[in-house]
Amino acid sequence: MHIYCRQDLLLNSINTVLKACSTKTTMPILECILLKASNNKLTLVGNNLELGIESTIDADVINEGYIALESKIFSEIIRRMPGEVVEISTDDNFMTSIISEKSKFQIAGQSGKDFPALPDVEKANICTVNQLALKEMIRQTIFSVAQDETRPILTGEMLQIKNNNLNMVSVDGYRISYRQLQLSNENGEIEVVIPGRTLSEINKILTSEEKEDVTVYFGDKHVLFDLGDSKVVSRLLEGEFLKYEQVFSPDYETKILVDRKNFLMSIERAALISREGKKNPIRVEINGEKMIITSNAELGTAREELDVILEGKEITIAFNPKYLIDALKAIDDDNVCIHFISSLTPCIIQPEEGEHYKYLILPIRVNA
Amino acid sequence: MHIYCRQDLLLNSINTVLKACSTKTTMPILECILLKASNNKLTLVGNNLELGIESTIDADVINEGYIALESKIFSEIIRRMPGEVVEISTDDNFMTSIISEKSKFQIAGQSGKDFPALPDVEKANICTVNQLALKEMIRQTIFSVAQDETRPILTGEMLQIKNNNLNMVSVDGYRISYRQLQLSNENGEIEVVIPGRTLSEINKILTSEEKEDVTVYFGDKHVLFDLGDSKVVSRLLEGEFLKYEQVFSPDYETKILVDRKNFLMSIERAALISREGKKNPIRVEINGEKMIITSNAELGTAREELDVILEGKEITIAFNPKYLIDALKAIDDDNVCIHFISSLTPCIIQPEEGEHYKYLILPIRVNA
Repeated sequence: MHIYCRQDLLLNSINTVLKACSTKTTMPILECILLKASNNKLTLVGNNLELGIESTIDADVINEGYIALESKIFSEIIRRMPGEVVEISTDDNFMTSIISEKSKFQIAGQSGKDFPALPDVEKANICTVNQLALKEMIRQTIFSVAQDETRPILTGEMLQIKNNNLNMVSVDGYRISYRQLQLSNENGEIEVVIPGRTLSEINKILTSEEKEDVTVYFGDKHVLFDLGDSKVVSRLLEGEFLKYEQVFSPDYETKILVDRKNFLMSIERAALISREGKKNPIRVEINGEKMIITSNAELGTAREELDVILEGKEITIAFNPKYLIDALKAIDDDNVCIHFISSLTPCIIQPEEGEHYKYLILPIRVNA
Repeated sequence: MHIYCRQDLLLNSINTVLKACSTKTTMPILECILLKASNNKLTLVGNNLELGIESTIDADVINEGYIALESKIFSEIIRRMPGEVVEISTDDNFMTSIISEKSKFQIAGQSGKDFPALPDVEKANICTVNQLALKEMIRQTIFSVAQDETRPILTGEMLQIKNNNLNMVSVDGYRISYRQLQLSNENGEIEVVIPGRTLSEINKILTSEEKEDVTVYFGDKHVLFDLGDSKVVSRLLEGEFLKYEQVFSPDYETKILVDRKNFLMSIERAALISREGKKNPIRVEINGEKMIITSNAELGTAREELDVILEGKEITIAFNPKYLIDALKAIDDDNVCIHFISSLTPCIIQPEEGEHYKYLILPIRVNA
């Protein structure tokens, strides 16, 4: 292989595929980035067998070929290259020289043949979504993916296409995050569970520019996100996901409307005391047009008072403040509407109107 | 104690004194901030017995008094207070209430009587320096303070006033950093060794505004930095510091002038390979008007070429790249001048003209 390419494009591409490179593995080839040069294109691939990312840039290809280079040192070298153009060439022993202006590196590579190919994904089931919209959906649900492996299926998020809506759902046993997006084009019904880690990495690659789309291909075992210059392939999780529709009951005994930012800041303050006392819950008391938030620990007490608009019964209920904070941070609206049934049943946080997001949070039982 | 004060001023003050609060200690009082209210001033004090910081702000004092509050929770509460004004009051049991708008905290404090007073520093030996100038001097020397305790005196920096110059010197056994500042006013001769940690913390408090001065009082066992609204007192280190004057010999066999930034970037690149090989030295070869920098490790090789202006003999010498990088980053000049005697003796990096900074670095012996 022998190529010339632009340093900035190459670095950008490396940063994209690096997200799929292993850092600790018993298979050193998975710590590499594969470089493939052909047809005046250079394609970089990272693949940790759960997640694979491919990124293609323009290059001046003198000799076609491929090589696998240890990702960490390769990225650091390219990041620091002095010139606008980088020359990369390999010899028969996989020794690779990287040259830019008067800077010259020689590093030992590995045969590209040993690098695991990205899985093929059938292109039968397709959905096209705006990149920014998908990015927002991930941000607003990713935090309640289960962190422990007790139920592996919950370490992923469900992506569901139903009635021409895209639904994303995550659940960690204490709370559920739900986000819906109306799709503009006709779509068949699909339901897959994508590992949380894949979604976190895709989130970093998705652009914030409003006009770019991403095409998602759903296979049996894999999902492919096609962003044009880059492609992300991920393994799907297998198993039965929570039947979330049943848990979001429209019934309530208490409904409040509250300023999201003030509510968030009050809970964050009350949590300062609660955190010191290690997982002490915070108590929320809806009392006429007031919400009183209190927390108690050995260290001291906090008391916060907020105005709310109440419909229905007064209620006192306790929560792990972290779950409220995560949900309130994920929402962008000025006001949120919260439904309660009793102090022992979950509350549901949702927009004042519509149902495009819903957060369900289990309360903590406390003595009266 | 009962006071009202501005939240932003209080937070600023907390952030200043927090640098002297212990985080892990067998004396819980050292984890506190002392609050003293009198004469419509609130004074905050942090003191870990090595370093003490005091900061004073305006306050509306209803009742004078003092209280010690656990620094971490106190700072977090004040940081998140919703209003512009904070009210703090204590009762006889040291229970402290902190109120701002509809947010109210009650935390258990400790008696201010148990808080260790800052040591008195005699005001006999005084020196006044521009804050920005002192900040720069610390930045340009602090990195070569010894990190290990083998020779405790070297974990500090020498501050020396001599011939109306302020000299600062640090040495860690492999290199020496020297920085000089001409003082505008008459000063007696002084030589003290200040703990590196103290200087790091003072560096964060010193302003970058050009017109502010700091007055330094040198006592027998302590030094006091008076910045007006805040005061920093530090223990001095006792022992014999290196006689640095003797090691900066003006003799040389090789003298080069090189572009600092290009030299720095070349070494940083070469160090990528050297770092992988764990402490492999980088080799510097001065060869006519060229400097060739090379490094070799199992992983591969790097080669860099730079233009230099040479005076004297050609030379090949090897270094730990970190020491060159630290020195070159600390310097602001476009070009630096480097003196060599042989490949087994230290090199000296200094400005093209003048002697206001000098860095001495020991070479590494390598096989030819």
